[in-house]
Amino acid sequence: MLIPCKYDKKYLMLNKNYLLPSEALKILINALKKVDPPFERCKIEEGFGRITATDIASPEDLPSFARSTVDGYAVSSADTFGASETSPAYITVRHEVKMGVAPDFTVRSMESAIIPTGGMLPEGTDAVVMLEHAQFIPPDMIEIIKSVAPAENVIQRGEDIKLGEILIHKGSKLRAQDIGALAGIGIIEIDVFKKPLVSVISTGDEIISPEMPVKQGQIRDINSYTLTGLIKDAGGIALRKGIIRDEYNAIKGIIEESVNDSNMILLSGGTSAGAQDMVASIINDIGSPGVLFHGLSLKPGKPMIGGIIGNKPVLGLPGHPVAVAVCFDLFIRPLIEALAGLRQDKYTYKTIRAKMTKNVASAAGREDHIRVYIEEKDGEIYAHPVLGKSGLISVLVRAQGSVVIPHSKFGLDAGDEVTVRLF
Amino acid sequence: MLIPCKYDKKYLMLNKNYLLPSEALKILINALKKVDPPFERCKIEEGFGRITATDIASPEDLPSFARSTVDGYAVSSADTFGASETSPAYITVRHEVKMGVAPDFTVRSMESAIIPTGGMLPEGTDAVVMLEHAQFIPPDMIEIIKSVAPAENVIQRGEDIKLGEILIHKGSKLRAQDIGALAGIGIIEIDVFKKPLVSVISTGDEIISPEMPVKQGQIRDINSYTLTGLIKDAGGIALRKGIIRDEYNAIKGIIEESVNDSNMILLSGGTSAGAQDMVASIINDIGSPGVLFHGLSLKPGKPMIGGIIGNKPVLGLPGHPVAVAVCFDLFIRPLIEALAGLRQDKYTYKTIRAKMTKNVASAAGREDHIRVYIEEKDGEIYAHPVLGKSGLISVLVRAQGSVVIPHSKFGLDAGDEVTVRLF
Repeated sequence: MLIPCKYDKKYLMLNKNYLLPSEALKILINALKKVDPPFERCKIEEGFGRITATDIASPEDLPSFARSTVDGYAVSSADTFGASETSPAYITVRHEVKMGVAPDFTVRSMESAIIPTGGMLPEGTDAVVMLEHAQFIPPDMIEIIKSVAPAENVIQRGEDIKLGEILIHKGSKLRAQDIGALAGIGIIEIDVFKKPLVSVISTGDEIISPEMPVKQGQIRDINSYTLTGLIKDAGGIALRKGIIRDEYNAIKGIIEESVNDSNMILLSGGTSAGAQDMVASIINDIGSPGVLFHGLSLKPGKPMIGGIIGNKPVLGLPGHPVAVAVCFDLFIRPLIEALAGLRQDKYTYKTIRAKMTKNVASAAGREDHIRVYIEEKDGEIYAHPVLGKSGLISVLVRAQGSVVIPHSKFGLDAGDEVTVRLF
Repeated sequence: MLIPCKYDKKYLMLNKNYLLPSEALKILINALKKVDPPFERCKIEEGFGRITATDIASPEDLPSFARSTVDGYAVSSADTFGASETSPAYITVRHEVKMGVAPDFTVRSMESAIIPTGGMLPEGTDAVVMLEHAQFIPPDMIEIIKSVAPAENVIQRGEDIKLGEILIHKGSKLRAQDIGALAGIGIIEIDVFKKPLVSVISTGDEIISPEMPVKQGQIRDINSYTLTGLIKDAGGIALRKGIIRDEYNAIKGIIEESVNDSNMILLSGGTSAGAQDMVASIINDIGSPGVLFHGLSLKPGKPMIGGIIGNKPVLGLPGHPVAVAVCFDLFIRPLIEALAGLRQDKYTYKTIRAKMTKNVASAAGREDHIRVYIEEKDGEIYAHPVLGKSGLISVLVRAQGSVVIPHSKFGLDAGDEVTVRLF
């Protein structure tokens, strides 16, 4: 006799009031103890994309001397006061500033020095007259028809970065310009947080490794490959733990191992309600606080499980590739960034505004994530929904981004302007 | 006697009608012969961000069998036709489909098999009744109150990806979902284009290496460190060629070496008009077609030089860090992407819409790029201009993105909605 009692819980799940994704993420983040990750020393040229483990203060002024911002003549600005077309100032050109060398002369009153862009202002000068505003009169005179103010066309000592100023705060993801600035103040090594290790476990008796020949009833492992790329992009290191059979002891063993050797554990697969429930039970059986939520008001991604064991997030993802990608953006990326020590920054998403080309319906009370591809036509940007079951990886391959229908809305109409979050 | 005749060309430059950045980029791209880069073999797990060297067609159907998308009962849909609350269909539950195994039984008329999500449809069935729509009546019967259509709750063989279908086109930058899809069709190695090598040469007699103590008049090398990060981000490999003195033979020698051992050459420095002109002469002296433009209608970035020697772009960048970043986005990133074999894709920029908080003036006829930082307040996103001379690296460190004032506009007003291109 076949009794499908193992599905019973599903009926319960359907009747519950599920959390919205944002509420669920808050629960996870709040339940994690904030601990700084360990750090390591890193050369700045290898620092791109790494996260700073300390505030970085400048050990010196940049520039360390007053520099000209133009090609021209270094003068004492007082000598040019009142100069105009009808009453020019006449100043002798006596010296020349060489690039990269401190001038070994002093400029006296009513004298000047030729100075290139970036040259050091000589003693006795406080401003630079642009070449275009001075008429050279051979053999050694310039006629100035417009006065310069003190510090005009000059970058002052420390104007770019001041000695002691905190240039980069702890928890910043280093961009190219940050690395340039560190080079500029003579810092060639910094402390960065170690990247979090994220275990990726595929479960499911039908899942096989991609290099194996596929038999009827079997499916190759897609999700752990997608997740490996996404984890790298988010700043973590993926540890692929292989494909585990849907058996209590096998899954419990691999989660216990992963809690020991990584900072976060992702399980993908278990598309059936029974498999989902088993993963939830195992998380609760291993450690506390265990499962914090099971099921979300989200499509695709409803059956997601979020838990914590020993201050390490353990997430059970739906088996469907599209759902995995949506859950990654909503939960896994922010969690990896938190574990990586990144300061919260709301502007890491890439988005564009576009017009929907078709109506898309959505149930109110549920957050819907729609995949779209982008087309530019006659200067307008359009978002075409890529419809398809969430079990299809090809939906993700054809799409370039996603649009969120908030839980308060019943759908989108063709012509609506939407924000597309690009992959 | 000091005669600043070496600056003469600058007067000419100021009177010329300069090209807009988009026109200049078009000239460079059109002058390059389109040649596929060499390619190399790559495991898919190392393929994230790499560019495909061939179209990739699927060697098989995915899935290779009809799968259930729900937990339920596999049936022949014909057996449910006409079923309703008042006239339910009664069907015997005779079998159970196991995950990952082809069913070794055939389902006869008026019979069904329990099937989990992802399970293979057994012979004799063409649809799945969801658990929620069937009432189990012990010992072995289900009551169905809603008919199912043929193929309902089923993913057909090949519905995700078809045998022979081109899944990923040549010249695509591989995203996480693309790698997942390749795993799904059993492709574990692919051909990708080799990354372009980009030589980075710093010039300027005042420039020293960051690890050196700085003397008066000297500045540490900022740009080659910023460029190294940007090149990596754009998909190239930076070859730092060190700091070269502003001397004709030294610069000519390093450019000739770099044309031999890399795919693109960037010179940064030479902020003075004289130094700029020397670089332009050297590019013309080494090979054809040589310099294609010198000077742009762009701020910051006006003195930029664009040339080609032996089908390799040679770009002379202004010495100022902010100008280097602007020129990178406008010229170097698109050129690296072209040399890397990337298909043109307009949607690689990350942008958000924001409101300007201050007026910013601009000269008409010139494209102005303004650095901004972003603030969210009461649900609105604001862009604050980060003003400062383009010689300052700290402007870039404080900024999170840039706003373009097109050449046809005189500026932006506080309150204007703008598109911010995020770094």
